[in-house]
This record gives sequence, C-alpha cells and structure tokens, in this order.
Amino acid sequence: MKIVPIILCGGAGTRLWPVSRESMPKPFIKVGGRSLLQRTWDRARTVPNVVHSAVVTNVAYSYKVAEELMDADSTTSTSILLEPFGRNTAPAIALAALWARAQYGNDVVMLVLPADHLIDSNEAFAAAVQAAAEMASESGRLMLFGITPTYPDTGFGYIEWEAAIGNSRAHKVARFVEKPSAAKADEYLAAGNFSWNSGMFCFTAGAILRSMGALAPELLAAAEAVVANAPLDGPQVAFDAARFEKLPNISIDYAVMEKADNVAVIPCGFGWSDIGSWKAVSEIHTPDAAGNVTDGQAIFVNSKRTYVRSDDRVVAAVGVEDLVVIDTPDALLVAHKSASQDVKEVVRTLREQGNEIYRIHRTVERPWGTYTVLLEGPRFKIKRIEVKPGAALSLQMHHRRSEHWIVVEGVAQVTIGDETVTVNRNESRYVPLGAKHRLANTGKETLAIVEVQCGDYLGEDDIVRFEDRYGRLQ
Amino acid sequence: MKIVPIILCGGAGTRLWPVSRESMPKPFIKVGGRSLLQRTWDRARTVPNVVHSAVVTNVAYSYKVAEELMDADSTTSTSILLEPFGRNTAPAIALAALWARAQYGNDVVMLVLPADHLIDSNEAFAAAVQAAAEMASESGRLMLFGITPTYPDTGFGYIEWEAAIGNSRAHKVARFVEKPSAAKADEYLAAGNFSWNSGMFCFTAGAILRSMGALAPELLAAAEAVVANAPLDGPQVAFDAARFEKLPNISIDYAVMEKADNVAVIPCGFGWSDIGSWKAVSEIHTPDAAGNVTDGQAIFVNSKRTYVRSDDRVVAAVGVEDLVVIDTPDALLVAHKSASQDVKEVVRTLREQGNEIYRIHRTVERPWGTYTVLLEGPRFKIKRIEVKPGAALSLQMHHRRSEHWIVVEGVAQVTIGDETVTVNRNESRYVPLGAKHRLANTGKETLAIVEVQCGDYLGEDDIVRFEDRYGRLQ
Repeated sequence: MKIVPIILCGGAGTRLWPVSRESMPKPFIKVGGRSLLQRTWDRARTVPNVVHSAVVTNVAYSYKVAEELMDADSTTSTSILLEPFGRNTAPAIALAALWARAQYGNDVVMLVLPADHLIDSNEAFAAAVQAAAEMASESGRLMLFGITPTYPDTGFGYIEWEAAIGNSRAHKVARFVEKPSAAKADEYLAAGNFSWNSGMFCFTAGAILRSMGALAPELLAAAEAVVANAPLDGPQVAFDAARFEKLPNISIDYAVMEKADNVAVIPCGFGWSDIGSWKAVSEIHTPDAAGNVTDGQAIFVNSKRTYVRSDDRVVAAVGVEDLVVIDTPDALLVAHKSASQDVKEVVRTLREQGNEIYRIHRTVERPWGTYTVLLEGPRFKIKRIEVKPGAALSLQMHHRRSEHWIVVEGVAQVTIGDETVTVNRNESRYVPLGAKHRLANTGKETLAIVEVQCGDYLGEDDIVRFEDRYGRLQ
Repeated sequence: MKIVPIILCGGAGTRLWPVSRESMPKPFIKVGGRSLLQRTWDRARTVPNVVHSAVVTNVAYSYKVAEELMDADSTTSTSILLEPFGRNTAPAIALAALWARAQYGNDVVMLVLPADHLIDSNEAFAAAVQAAAEMASESGRLMLFGITPTYPDTGFGYIEWEAAIGNSRAHKVARFVEKPSAAKADEYLAAGNFSWNSGMFCFTAGAILRSMGALAPELLAAAEAVVANAPLDGPQVAFDAARFEKLPNISIDYAVMEKADNVAVIPCGFGWSDIGSWKAVSEIHTPDAAGNVTDGQAIFVNSKRTYVRSDDRVVAAVGVEDLVVIDTPDALLVAHKSASQDVKEVVRTLREQGNEIYRIHRTVERPWGTYTVLLEGPRFKIKRIEVKPGAALSLQMHHRRSEHWIVVEGVAQVTIGDETVTVNRNESRYVPLGAKHRLANTGKETLAIVEVQCGDYLGEDDIVRFEDRYGRLQ
C-alpha cells in the first residue's frame, strides 16, 4: 500500500486576526515554534507507508510553503500544487487525485488533511489513518475521520453513523447534519452516534475520481482539462488560470460525500482542534496558577484566565479576566474569550475602511527574504530588508525615488548601473533615481540592510523589473 | 493686588503608565491636544491681577517646560524655578515664596497650583481664586481650595469646616482628615461640611513665610540658605544642589497647614479631577452611545464603556466591557476600570525587573529636539533624530561606533572633523568612529535625519562632548 498525504493549505482565518491575514493565513501561524502547516506535515509523516506528499496552495504562498517544508527534516519528497487563486475543497481534491493517479496509479491512497488543524496524539492519529487506509484500499470506500464531540458545539457539521462495518473501527454514514441548534447539539452529544465532521478524508485516487465522475461529472471534466497539458512531475506544479477558473466553487462534502453511498466514518478521539478562534489557541498552552497564558512578555496583576500573545512589546494586564490580548507591530486585538469568534467583524470593518492591515503585515514576505517598513514620513520611507543566503532581488529601477543602502548584517553584492561591488557591514551605497540596481546576497549568512527611500512618491508599484529569478517580470 | 500663580510641576504619576513615565511625568500628558501643565497655566492666566507666573520643576524638565509655555500665547512673563532633584511640596513652596517676595514684596498673593489637575470651569475657578486672594490679601489668612465631594472617595484627604467667615465664601477649618475608610467617607459626604483637600492654596508671600518661621523654622532656614546666593531674577532660576539637599522632605500640609490657626477653606464645585487614574482620564471625554471613548484609532465590536488610547496603531476591542486599553510604541496596558489604580504595581514590577520602559519612552526628549530608536539589532541601531530650528547637538565623538546620517526633512549643517558642510534632503554623510562631529539645524524648518549606528557597543553613554550649548559637558 502506498499513502500520499494531500495537505490543503489555504484560507484566510479571519478569526485569528491580527496574526492571521490574507498575506499570512492561518496555516502559517506558529504554535510552539512550528507553524500549523509544519505540524500537519510532521504528523502526516508519522503514518506508515507514506511515499510522497503534496501541498495544495495558492501560488502566492509557494515560496513560503517551500521554505517551511525545506526547513523540516524531509525523508520523502513533497510536491506543491499551485492554485492560481483560491477555490473550494472539491477542485483542490480533484486536481490532487489526478496528480496522484498520474504518479502512482488508481490504487494510491490519498490522505486529505487541512493544514490548519491541531491534533494532540500523533500515535492515535496514525492508528486511525492506518485503519482508514486499509479499508479504503480494500473496499474502495470513501473514508471520513469523525471527531467524537466533547461538548455540544454549534459551529461544526455533524455526521450520524450506524453500526460498525464488520469488526472494523469504521461505521456506515447515516446522514450529514449542518451546524445544529444548541438543543440539537445537546441531543447529538447525548446520542453517542454522532461525530464532528473534521474535513479529513482517506480514499484511493481511483475511488474518489470514480465518485466524482458519477456524482460531479462537470467538476471532473474541468479538472481533467486543467491537468491535460500541465507537467505533473516537478516539485512545483502550476495550473493554467483560464482553465482553473472553469472549476466549480464547491466543497467536497457537497459535491461527493453527502451523495455517495460508499462513505464510511471512523470516530476518533485523538484530541483535535481546528483552531477556530484565539480562545482555541489559548487552550493549547499550559496556563499558570491563575489560568493566565503568556506567549511573549506579559505582566499580570490581579488577572485571571487571560491569554497574552506579543511579538516584542511588554503587555500589562491589570484586573482583567477571560481576555485574549493579541499584539502585533501595527494592530492590537483585545477580546473577551466568549466573543473571540467575532474577530471576523473587525476584519470586515477594516476591509470596508480600506485599511490594509486586514490584509498585510508590517513585515512582508518575498521569495528572496522579507522587508519591514520601520517608518514612513513626508517624502521618505525607512525599510529594513533581509535577504536570504544565495537570494537576490530583481534587477530594477524606480522612476520617482532614490535609495540609500547601509549594510548592517552580512555582506551585500550591489549592482548600480554597470558596476557590481561588494559592500560590507557599516558601508553604504547610494542608488540615484532612475539607476538600474540589484541587491544580492552571495554569502552564507543572512544579509540585512537599512534602506532609506527619498522621493515624491514611495509606493511599492514604482518598480520596473528587468530580470527576476522568481519570474516576477510584470 | 498682585497675584503670582506658582505651578508645581513634578511627580511621576505611575498610575498613568505607560504614557506617564519618569522621563515624561503626568503634567506633560496631553488631554485634547494640550498638556495638563499647559491647561493649568492657561487656567491661571484667566485670573485677574496676575502679574507674573512661576513653574517649580525638576531641572531635567526645564527645556520641556520652557518649550510648552513658549508655545502658549503669553502676555505675562513666566519664570522657571529649577529643583536639582524632587523634594516635597513644602520646600517647593518655601523657595517660591522667597522668590516671589524678592520680586514683589511681602504682599504679593501666591496662587499655588499642582500642574496635573483638570478643572471644568475656568470661570468658576477664577471667581474662587478672586475670593481667596482678597481674603488672603486683607487678613493674611492661608487659604485652601476645598472640593465639594460628589461621591464618597477613600483616596483623598478631607477638610472639615465650620461656619462661614463673615459674609464670605470662606470657612474656618475645623480639622484635616487623612484618607478615610469607606464608612467614614459616606459619613463625610452626608454631613455636608467636608471638602476634599485639592492641594491648591492661596496666601501672601509674607503670610506663608511668617507661618513657616513659626511652625517649620528649619524648613525656612534651609530655604533661605538655598536662595541666599542664587540670582532670582532670570527666566530660569537654578538652585545649588548641596544646599537644596538640606531641605526637609515634607509636605506643606504637614509642615504648615495642619498646624496653623489662620487657615480657611473655600468649598468649590468647579468640576475638579486630579486625573489619578486612566478611569479618570476616560471620564474627561464624551463617550459614544455604547459608552466607549476613543483617543486614536479604535474599532469596537459588541464592546461597552471601554476607553482606548493609541498613538498610531489600530486597536480592536471585541466583546469587552469597562476596560482601559492604553497603547504606546513599546508598552501596552489593558486594565479593568475598577483596577486602574493598580497600574502602579506594573511600574513597580518593571523597575524590579530592570526594564527601562517604566522610566523612558521610545522617543526621548532632548533640549535640541528628540530621538526615537526605530530598531536595534546585533551591532547596529537605527534612530530618527529631529532637531528644532536653530538648535544643535553637542560637538561630540564616539569611541566605539560610526554613524551614517541621511537627511529626510529640512537642511542639516554637519561638522565632521575640521569640515562643516550643508547637507540637503536625500543626501548622506558618514561619521567615522573617533571623528569629532556635530549636527545642527540653522534653518527655519525642522530637521530630521535617519542615523544608522554601527559598532560593537551602542550605549548612549559612549559619548565624549567637547562643546554643548545646553551645559551638558559631563
């Protein structure tokens, strides 16, 4: 048996603003030093018989995903399937299934995992996957992982199940239930034969494609058109946007699972969370005696059950209870734990106001590294630019600004006009308005420079690129 | 009759951290665009017969005070009396009385005002002062301003008073009461003949000095020694530290008021606050329909009676009630309004931890302007330096760092070694390690530069000053 985990890495996660934003969605949030994506990938690789894995993500995150998984200690190869824009789960799974079949044939077992869940026990997870994979492989069933409810949640969908299938852990599915009322949720919890729908699945590529052909033929046809002329065997697989756009925006539950008659569920109790709110994040950590949790620098005075997360500032909480305080360089959230689902309202308001902090962070990730705007004023902008070893910015030119570069860490290779020179720490260079220039790090250490821009217009769009190793020429 | 307001400008105001800090105490906190000091000064000048005013403050705040009052539209002159370090109210008032007598004789009326109170009605204040000044002038009495209690506060001292003196608004004082228990405070509120002790006074220089001579002779003797050889007639009056140190650390209430038999109180109802907590600050502002108050950028979602103060970040409050959220570039306070007195505990903790944010702000005020540390890293520090028109930093040298200067606003006059040049916006200069240098602004606009320091030690104490127009040569 060959198993290929398919990790679905998308979604804005507006309920985890201000850390999660469009440019840095929920899978990239770090918990205990590793991102949710990395943790999902780590967990997938504890499963026996994994031969290869794939991450389906937006093309905008391709460098971020590659970097995160490059950092991880890899023994099996990982492919990144790049969606030109976000669709729903059914298109992502259809493309992944066609990709997996092309690599390993109809019998390969796909383990579909959202990139932004946490699970307490990797061992219990691996055992459930093992059971699911065997049944998927032997019977061609579409296997769901159900989560045994621990309280009557009204935010999840539920799966009602019947008697066990033979001697296995799996049950035939009776029906899918949308987010229930509080009374119904109580009832489901008491009944004992309901599970939360986790969004994790296991099936062979052949079985899911067969079901799609029968139950969602237009989806399958559109997906086949997308992969028809795409090379599928590289580390990164790109899809044509015009063909991709024809894929219907539909979930896998709605397109297939709720209609198929060969669906089975394995009820699981391995400590699962979809990290749906800051309250859920706070519950991952071990609190102090007063129930407070700190992720950063916090001072608690007469405060209880409060979660503080701060990058680099000191947060003092005085006489408060049951709060989450999430501090980032340009935005701060103070929310009552019971209201932490309403954070999405803040994001909606910011979007309506045209305030970009709903979308981007002060530190912006680029394929070559990061930049952080330290200060903006009339006719000037100060950035710290960090370039990874071996990376280079594009060869570029600005029409309306000049730039002063001062190297503060590492060694820079600086091209201005026809000249390329090495610039060491504590040395500076001036890039006149209109001059072609390039900043590169040919060393083995990180390069950091301070850039002071001067000009009458300092927008990021004043850039003419002549050469770019990351394909960003327009 | 000649009236001289004496404004006492000191005190850390730890309950208003993180805005109020040792380097920027409570009188400099801005409310509605003007500082409490400026508002006190404005209010004092609405009183008829004011001929001159004086501010008693720490020498560390002399430039700050001069600048704040220079900004104000002055029609009478103001002197600044500079204490070498903080003492208590009795020494400050003794020195101010000797200063006032030297200028205007025994009969001059002193109006003593703490610099960090707010009063709603300047007209009612001026009327009360008029009544107090007349009685002080005619009878030599020591006049107190009592505040008519609006609730049974347990944090203030109370003054119990007897029948009115003649047809006047003033009453003879029966006794002073320290901060009472809740039960006693209820009793005093119901009784109707108790006022809060505001710390504002009115008396002639002759009367207060006579009382000091009788009731606190060692205080008067020490104060006379301090002023004996000090020139008292300039805009700034400095006192010798060795003599100043001999002044007893004692309050005017304890040294004189509680013992004197010629004390009278005028009960006042002009809407007074000593701004003793963030809760008090929040009550100055007009709330929205949900009781929320914003000073900066805030987004409220299902929140009530919450006060947000933020310099430049967006603060989102979700599902919270009765909080104060005070945001500054390097520290954040989230406190329940009922606990806002406990903020001093945070300051105590920070001091114990050796964290300087209890003491200084990220933007540091200097006689010549300000500097702000934008970023610090290994072997580099980035500052924004703002120099006022006509101002100059000292001629200086560093042993362990070099500096890159880039002009981003205004025009700089830069001295490096023997050469002095003009440096325009978008031009830069390099100051090598060990080179004598000076930055000056000879123009009429503010000068702003970005300074990138490089070196193995970047502390503020690596500075050798050769010339300084502000007397900071050691």
